[in-house]
Amino acid sequence: MRVLVIHGPNLNLLGEREPSIYGKQTLAEVNELIGACAADLDIDVRCVQHNSEGAIVDELHAASADFEAVLLNPGAYAHYSYTIADAVAAIGIPVIEVHLSNTAAREEFRRRSVVAPACAGTVAGFGANSYTAALYAAAKIRIK
Amino acid sequence: MRVLVIHGPNLNLLGEREPSIYGKQTLAEVNELIGACAADLDIDVRCVQHNSEGAIVDELHAASADFEAVLLNPGAYAHYSYTIADAVAAIGIPVIEVHLSNTAAREEFRRRSVVAPACAGTVAGFGANSYTAALYAAAKIRIK
Amino acid sequence: MRVLVIHGPNLNLLGEREPSIYGKQTLAEVNELIGACAADLDIDVRCVQHNSEGAIVDELHAASADFEAVLLNPGAYAHYSYTIADAVAAIGIPVIEVHLSNTAAREEFRRRSVVAPACAGTVAGFGANSYTAALYAAAKIRIK
Amino acid sequence: MRVLVIHGPNLNLLGEREPSIYGKQTLAEVNELIGACAADLDIDVRCVQHNSEGAIVDELHAASADFEAVLLNPGAYAHYSYTIADAVAAIGIPVIEVHLSNTAAREEFRRRSVVAPACAGTVAGFGANSYTAALYAAAKIRIK
Amino acid sequence: MRVLVIHGPNLNLLGEREPSIYGKQTLAEVNELIGACAADLDIDVRCVQHNSEGAIVDELHAASADFEAVLLNPGAYAHYSYTIADAVAAIGIPVIEVHLSNTAAREEFRRRSVVAPACAGTVAGFGANSYTAALYAAAKIRIK
Amino acid sequence: MRVLVIHGPNLNLLGEREPSIYGKQTLAEVNELIGACAADLDIDVRCVQHNSEGAIVDELHAASADFEAVLLNPGAYAHYSYTIADAVAAIGIPVIEVHLSNTAAREEFRRRSVVAPACAGTVAGFGANSYTAALYAAAKIRIK
Amino acid sequence: MRVLVIHGPNLNLLGEREPSIYGKQTLAEVNELIGACAADLDIDVRCVQHNSEGAIVDELHAASADFEAVLLNPGAYAHYSYTIADAVAAIGIPVIEVHLSNTAAREEFRRRSVVAPACAGTVAGFGANSYTAALYAAAKIRIK
Amino acid sequence: MRVLVIHGPNLNLLGEREPSIYGKQTLAEVNELIGACAADLDIDVRCVQHNSEGAIVDELHAASADFEAVLLNPGAYAHYSYTIADAVAAIGIPVIEVHLSNTAAREEFRRRSVVAPACAGTVAGFGANSYTAALYAAAKIRIK
Amino acid sequence: MRVLVIHGPNLNLLGEREPSIYGKQTLAEVNELIGACAADLDIDVRCVQHNSEGAIVDELHAASADFEAVLLNPGAYAHYSYTIADAVAAIGIPVIEVHLSNTAAREEFRRRSVVAPACAGTVAGFGANSYTAALYAAAKIRIK
Amino acid sequence: MRVLVIHGPNLNLLGEREPSIYGKQTLAEVNELIGACAADLDIDVRCVQHNSEGAIVDELHAASADFEAVLLNPGAYAHYSYTIADAVAAIGIPVIEVHLSNTAAREEFRRRSVVAPACAGTVAGFGANSYTAALYAAAKIRIK
Amino acid sequence: MRVLVIHGPNLNLLGEREPSIYGKQTLAEVNELIGACAADLDIDVRCVQHNSEGAIVDELHAASADFEAVLLNPGAYAHYSYTIADAVAAIGIPVIEVHLSNTAAREEFRRRSVVAPACAGTVAGFGANSYTAALYAAAKIRIK
Amino acid sequence: MRVLVIHGPNLNLLGEREPSIYGKQTLAEVNELIGACAADLDIDVRCVQHNSEGAIVDELHAASADFEAVLLNPGAYAHYSYTIADAVAAIGIPVIEVHLSNTAAREEFRRRSVVAPACAGTVAGFGANSYTAALYAAAKIRIK
Repeated sequence: MRVLVIHGPNLNLLGEREPSIYGKQTLAEVNELIGACAADLDIDVRCVQHNSEGAIVDELHAASADFEAVLLNPGAYAHYSYTIADAVAAIGIPVIEVHLSNTAAREEFRRRSVVAPACAGTVAGFGANSYTAALYAAAKIRIK
Repeated sequence: MRVLVIHGPNLNLLGEREPSIYGKQTLAEVNELIGACAADLDIDVRCVQHNSEGAIVDELHAASADFEAVLLNPGAYAHYSYTIADAVAAIGIPVIEVHLSNTAAREEFRRRSVVAPACAGTVAGFGANSYTAALYAAAKIRIK
Repeated sequence: MRVLVIHGPNLNLLGEREPSIYGKQTLAEVNELIGACAADLDIDVRCVQHNSEGAIVDELHAASADFEAVLLNPGAYAHYSYTIADAVAAIGIPVIEVHLSNTAAREEFRRRSVVAPACAGTVAGFGANSYTAALYAAAKIRIK
Repeated sequence: MRVLVIHGPNLNLLGEREPSIYGKQTLAEVNELIGACAADLDIDVRCVQHNSEGAIVDELHAASADFEAVLLNPGAYAHYSYTIADAVAAIGIPVIEVHLSNTAAREEFRRRSVVAPACAGTVAGFGANSYTAALYAAAKIRIK
Repeated sequence: MRVLVIHGPNLNLLGEREPSIYGKQTLAEVNELIGACAADLDIDVRCVQHNSEGAIVDELHAASADFEAVLLNPGAYAHYSYTIADAVAAIGIPVIEVHLSNTAAREEFRRRSVVAPACAGTVAGFGANSYTAALYAAAKIRIK
Repeated sequence: MRVLVIHGPNLNLLGEREPSIYGKQTLAEVNELIGACAADLDIDVRCVQHNSEGAIVDELHAASADFEAVLLNPGAYAHYSYTIADAVAAIGIPVIEVHLSNTAAREEFRRRSVVAPACAGTVAGFGANSYTAALYAAAKIRIK
Repeated sequence: MRVLVIHGPNLNLLGEREPSIYGKQTLAEVNELIGACAADLDIDVRCVQHNSEGAIVDELHAASADFEAVLLNPGAYAHYSYTIADAVAAIGIPVIEVHLSNTAAREEFRRRSVVAPACAGTVAGFGANSYTAALYAAAKIRIK
Repeated sequence: MRVLVIHGPNLNLLGEREPSIYGKQTLAEVNELIGACAADLDIDVRCVQHNSEGAIVDELHAASADFEAVLLNPGAYAHYSYTIADAVAAIGIPVIEVHLSNTAAREEFRRRSVVAPACAGTVAGFGANSYTAALYAAAKIRIK
Repeated sequence: MRVLVIHGPNLNLLGEREPSIYGKQTLAEVNELIGACAADLDIDVRCVQHNSEGAIVDELHAASADFEAVLLNPGAYAHYSYTIADAVAAIGIPVIEVHLSNTAAREEFRRRSVVAPACAGTVAGFGANSYTAALYAAAKIRIK
Repeated sequence: MRVLVIHGPNLNLLGEREPSIYGKQTLAEVNELIGACAADLDIDVRCVQHNSEGAIVDELHAASADFEAVLLNPGAYAHYSYTIADAVAAIGIPVIEVHLSNTAAREEFRRRSVVAPACAGTVAGFGANSYTAALYAAAKIRIK
Repeated sequence: MRVLVIHGPNLNLLGEREPSIYGKQTLAEVNELIGACAADLDIDVRCVQHNSEGAIVDELHAASADFEAVLLNPGAYAHYSYTIADAVAAIGIPVIEVHLSNTAAREEFRRRSVVAPACAGTVAGFGANSYTAALYAAAKIRIK
Repeated sequence: MRVLVIHGPNLNLLGEREPSIYGKQTLAEVNELIGACAADLDIDVRCVQHNSEGAIVDELHAASADFEAVLLNPGAYAHYSYTIADAVAAIGIPVIEVHLSNTAAREEFRRRSVVAPACAGTVAGFGANSYTAALYAAAKIRIK
C-alpha cells in the first residue's frame, strides 16, 4: 500500500512554532516517526509539505495516480479552503484529515473544518501520533 | 495498560440500525474486533454500552480508578451533552472521542461536538476501526 | 394493529401542571380517552410514561418487536434530544410526534422539534385529542 | 358541523408534481377522500384551492360566516405569509394547519411555519390522511 | 393637494379583528375620520383597501398619475414584501408608511419593515390618528 | 395640554451637522417651528436638549409631574439605551419617539430602536415636521 | 422550440423606474429585442408580465403544456417567494432565472434567490441582454 | 420551613474536580456548611445529588409534597435541559438556581441558563456560600 | 466590614415604577431593609443611586479606597455598558451584581449581563432581599 | 473583440471529477466548444486554467492590457476569495462570473459568491454552455 | 497645528488598572510622553479625560473651534456608543481612534468599534506609543 | 533596526486601482515615501509585494532571520487567511498590520481582520502614511 502524507502551511516551522501547542519535534522528526510506523505497517509512505493552497491542490490531483490513500494535515486551510475540499472530493482515493492538536479545544474558528466533509475520516489531538494512528486506520480499513 | 470503551446511545442496535451509515457489524462483532486489536497492542480492554446520559456520567466517574484511558463514543450526546463534557473534564485520565461515521459529512448539527473540547483527541469516520485506531493512539502516546 | 403510546417527561403531572396550557385532565383520564378511541378504531394500545431520556430510548428500541406504530409525546426533549431522534430513526416502525399544546404558539425554543425530522408526521395543539387524531391517522394510513 | 378546506398554492398539480414527495393522488381524489371521511364524521365539508395569497385571505375572511372550522394547507405560504397568519388570527373560528408531507424532514426553510402560531393546531406528514386526521380532530374537540 | 390612502390586508376587518390591538373603529369610520381631517387640511383624499400584494402594487403604479402623495398601511406585507418596496421606490411620488399599532412593541417579526427604506417616512402607534398625523405631515412638508 | 420636547444627543449641532441628512435648519429654528405649531394646536410646549443619557433619564423622570406627553428624539441612544427605554416605561405619561430622518433608510444599526417598544408611537422621516406631526398626534389622540 | 418569457413585478415600469439601475429601455423595447434575438435563434417566443405572485404561479402551471422552456425574471419575488419556487419545481420544463441588474452588487437581501435552487440556471447583470443570453443558452443546451 | 437542596451532575466529584474552578471542599463538606447555616436560619434541610436528568425531574416532582422551597444546582443541565425547566415550572413551590462558580465569567455556553426563567431567582459565584446565601434568601422572603 | 451599595438607573422611581415587576417598596424602604440587615451582619453600609453611567463609573473608582466590597444593581446598563464592566474589573475589590427581578424570565435582552463577567457573583430575583442575600454572601465569604 | 477565459481550481479534472455534477466533457472539449462559439461570434478567445489564487490574481492583472472582457469561473474561490474580488474590481475591463453547475441548488456555502459583486454579471447552471452564453452576452452588450 | 487628545473612561486609573493589559505608566506619564512627542512634531497638544459619554460628546463638539484634529481613545464606548460615533461624524475635523492594547486580540466584543467608521483612521496595540504614532500620522498627513 | 514591509495582493496596481479609495500614488512612490521616512528614523527597510498567500507565508517565515519587525498590509487576505495569521503567530518577531484605507468604514466584511489578533498592533486609514506611522511606532516601541 502506498500512502502520501501532505503537511500543510506553517508545518515546516514545527518544533520552533508555539511548542506549547504543537510540541517540540521538528517536521523531520515527525516524518521519521511516520516512516518507522509505515515500515511496521508495511506501507510505502511519502511526505511533502506546502504552504501554498494551489500547491496542495496540485499535489492532491497528482496523488491518485501513485497512491492509494492520502493523509492531509490542511493546517489553517481546514477552516476556509473550499478549494482544497473540492480537490479532495475530486480525486478517486480516500483522504484522511489529520491535526496535531485537538482543534476543538482551541479558538472558535478552528472548531469547524470545511475540508472534513470531503474526507473519509479525521484523526486529531495526538501530536505526531495523529499521523501514525491515521496510517494505522488506512492500513486496517477499506475506507468507505 | 487498561482502557475502557464506552459505547453511547443507540449503539446497541448496531448492524440493524441504518446500515448504510453505520455498517453491518453488530456491537458484539465490533467488541470482538476491539478485543483482538487490544490483545495485539497488549491493552486490557473493557467494553460497555449505555443509552442513558446519567449512566455514561457515572461510568466516566468510576473509570479513573481502574483505567488509564477511555474511548468514548458519545453518539448523539456529542452534540448537546455539556454534562458529559464536564464529566470528561472532571476525571484525571485522558478520554478519546470516537465516531463510526464521518460526522462532518452528515447533518449540520453533527458537525460540532460539545464533548470534544474536553477530550484529548478525536477519531472519526473509519467504522469499527475508529475504535482500533483510537486504541493504537492510546497505546502509542502519552496524551497531553 | 398494535400501537404504543409514550408520554414523555412531566406528563405524569398532567392536570396539576399549568392547566391553562395543558388542560385539566389527568394522565389517567387521557389514557382512558386514548383507550376508548383505540377500541373504536380496533387498535390494541399500550400507554407508558417516562421522565428519563434513556428510558424513552430503551422503550423505543423495544417497541419494534411488539408494535406496528408509536405515538411519542417527547415533551421538552423534542427541542434538544438528538439521541431520541436517532432512536426513532433506528427502529423499523413509524413514530408519530404528538403534542398537547400548539407548540408553535409558545416560547421560541418550542418552535423547532429536533425529533420531528425522524418521525412520520406530527399532530399538535388539540389537547388529549392530539393523541386520538394521531391514532386515527395511524389506523388509516400506511405511513411512509 | 360545517368545515372549509383550503388547499393552497401548487396543490392543483397534485399527482403530477414531485410524486415522490406529495404522492400520486390528484386533488380530486384527495377531495373525494376528504368527502368520504367527512360523511363518516357527519361533517359538511367544502373544498377550495387557491394559488394567490390574497385569495386565501379573502376565503378566510368569508369563512367565519358559513363555517365552524377551517382546514388550511398553506403550502409554501406557511413559511413567509404573515398576512395569512394575520387573517387566521382575525377570524373568529379555529383554523387547523395541514401539510401532506412531514415538512420538518425537508429543506431548512420548511421547518418553521409563520402561520402555525395563529392556528389551533397542526397535522402534517400523513399524505391525504393529514386532512382526514385533522377533520377527525375538528369533529372531536372544542378547539381552544 | 391629492393624497391616496391604501389600506393593506386584513384592514377590511377593522373593528371586528383583535380590537384590543387594532381598536373598535370600523374601516368606514376610520375613512370618515381621514376624510374630515383631509377636509380641514384642504387635501383631496381617496381611500382604497386591498388584501392582495399584486393589487397594492398596481394601485401604487397607478397613483403617480393622479396623486401627489400616498399613505400606505402595508399591514403584514411590511415585513416581507420586497415587491411592494420596489413599487414604492419605482413611482415618482412620496409614500408614507402608516401603522395603527406600535409595531415595535409587538412580535419580533413586526419590528422590521422592509417597505420602510423606500418610503419618505413612518407614522405608527396612534390608531386611526396615525393616518391623520401622516396627512398632516404630507400637508406641511415638501417630503424629500 | 402641556408637552415636553426632548432633543437628544448631537441635535444641538443641527444645521451644521451633515445637512444632507439632517437639513439646514438650526435647533433654534426647529424649536420656533414647533412653538408655532403648538400655538396653533393650543399646546403649551417646552423644548430641551441633552447630550447625556443620564440627563435624558432625569428629564423623563421629572416630566410626569408637569407634562401630559413627551416627544423624545433619542438620537443614536435609540439604538442601544435600554436605560432610556426603562425610563420611558417607568413614567406615567405617553412618550412619542421622533426622528428627523427616515432611520429605516440608513445604516443597518439605525433600523431598530430599543426605545420604541416602550413608547406610544413613532414619527420619523419628515425633518422638523416629524415633531409637528407628532404634536398633532399628541393633540388629537388619547394615546393608549 | 417554444419559450415563454415571464416578466415579474414592477417590470411594466421599465424605462421610467430607477433608470440608473434598470436602464432606459421600456418593456416593449425589451420585448422587441427578445423577439429579434428569438427569431435569429429560430425560437418561438411569448412574453408576459405580472405583478401578482399568484398570476406568476398560474402562468408557470400553464406553461408546460405549450412551451419547452421558461425565462423567468421573478423581480423581488426572487428573494422570498417559496411559492414560485415550488411552482418552478412542480412543472416538467426547465426554467431559467433572469435578472436585468447584477443582484449580487446591490442590497444584502438581493444576494440570495429562493427561486434559484428550483431553476436550471441563472443569467444576471446584462440588462435586456440577460434575456437574450438566456435564450441563447436555452437554444444551445439540453438543460439538466 | 423545609428546604430541599438538589446538587446536579458531577457535583459528587467536588473537591477533586477542577479545584481552581470549583474549590477544594468535598460535597460532604459543602453539605455540612449548608446544614450549619440551615440550623442558624431554623430551616430543615435535606441534600441530594443526582447525575441523571430524569432523576432530577423525579426529585423535583416529589419535592412539592414535602418541602416549601428547593435550591437547585443544575450543573451543566442548566444550559440545555428544557425538561428540568418544565419540571421547575410544573411544581407549586419556588426553586432557586444556585451555581458555585460565576458562570457568566466562563465559557460562552455557560452564560445562558434555560432553567433560570422557570426559577424564582439565582445565586451564583460564591462557592459553597452560593447555597447559604440562597438559603438566607429562602428564609427571608416570600418568593413570588 | 464596609460595603457600598450602588443603585443604578431608574431605581429612584422604585415603588411607583411598574410595581408588578419591581414591587411596591420605595428606594428609601429598600435602603432601610438593607441597613437593618447590615446591622445584623455587622456591616457598615452606604447606599447611593445614580442614573448616569459616568457617575456609576466614578463611584466605582472611588469605592476601593473606602470599602471592601460593592453591591451593584446596574439596572439596564447591565445589558450594554462595557464601560461599567471595565470599571468593575479595574478596581481592586469584589463587586456583586444584584437585580430585584429575575432578569432571565423577562425580555430577551435582559438575559445577558455584560457586567456579570467582571463581577464576583450575582444575586437576582428576590426583590429587595436580593440585596440582603448579597450582603450575607459578602459577609460570609472571602470572595475569589 | 478579445476575451480571456479563466478556468479556476479543479477544472483541470473536468470529465473525471464528479461527472454527475460537472458533466463528462474534459476541459479540452469545453475549450473547443468555447473556441467554436467564439469563432461564430467573431471573438478572439484565449483559455487558461489555474489552481492557485495568486495565479488567478496575476492573470486578471495582466488581462486588461490585452483583452476587452474576461470570463472567470472562480470555482470554489467564489465563496471566500475577497482577494480575487478585489482584483476583479481593480482592473478596467468587465469580468463575467461563470459556473458550470447551478450553484444555488448545491451546498449552502455555494449559494453566495463574494466575487460576484465585483463582476458585471453571472451565468450559471448550463454546463459548458454557461461559457458560450456568457460569450454571447459579452459580444452583444456594452457591459456597465 | 493644534491637536486635542481625549482619553475615555477608566483611563484615569492607568497604571493601577490591569497592568498586564494596559501597562504600568500612569495617565500623567502618558500625557508627558504625548507632550514630548508633540513638541518634537511642533504640535500644540491638549489632553483631557472623561468617564462620561455625554462629556466626551460635548468635548468633541467644542473641539472643532480650537483644534485641527482629535486623537480619541473611546475606551469601551468604542463598542456601543453610536452617540459618540455621531458626534465624530458631526464635527468638521478629523478624529483618529487610538487604543493602548491590540483590541483584536482580546474579548470578542472588543473586535468591533462602532466609532471607527466615523473616524479618519485607527492606531492600536502600541501602549502609550499608540498616541505618539497617531500624532505622527496627524502631523504628516492631510487626512481625508 | 531592520524592518521588512510586505505589501499584499493587488497593491502592485496602486495608483491605477480605485484611486478614490486607495489614492493616486503608485507602489513605487509609496516605497519611496517609506524609504525616506525609514532613513529619518534610522531604520533599514526592505519592501516586497506578493499576490499569493503562500508567498506571503514564505516571506514571513524567512523574515525572522533578517529583520526585527514586519509591517504587513495583508490586503483582502486580512479577512479570511487564518494561514497568514498562523504564520504571523509562528515567527518570533512583531508584525504590525497596516491598511491604506479605513477598513472599518467600508464593506461589512472588511470590518474584521482575522490576522489582527496575531499581530502586535494595527495602523489604518492614513493612505501611504499608515506605513510611516507604523514605522514610527516600530522605531519608538519595544512591541510586546
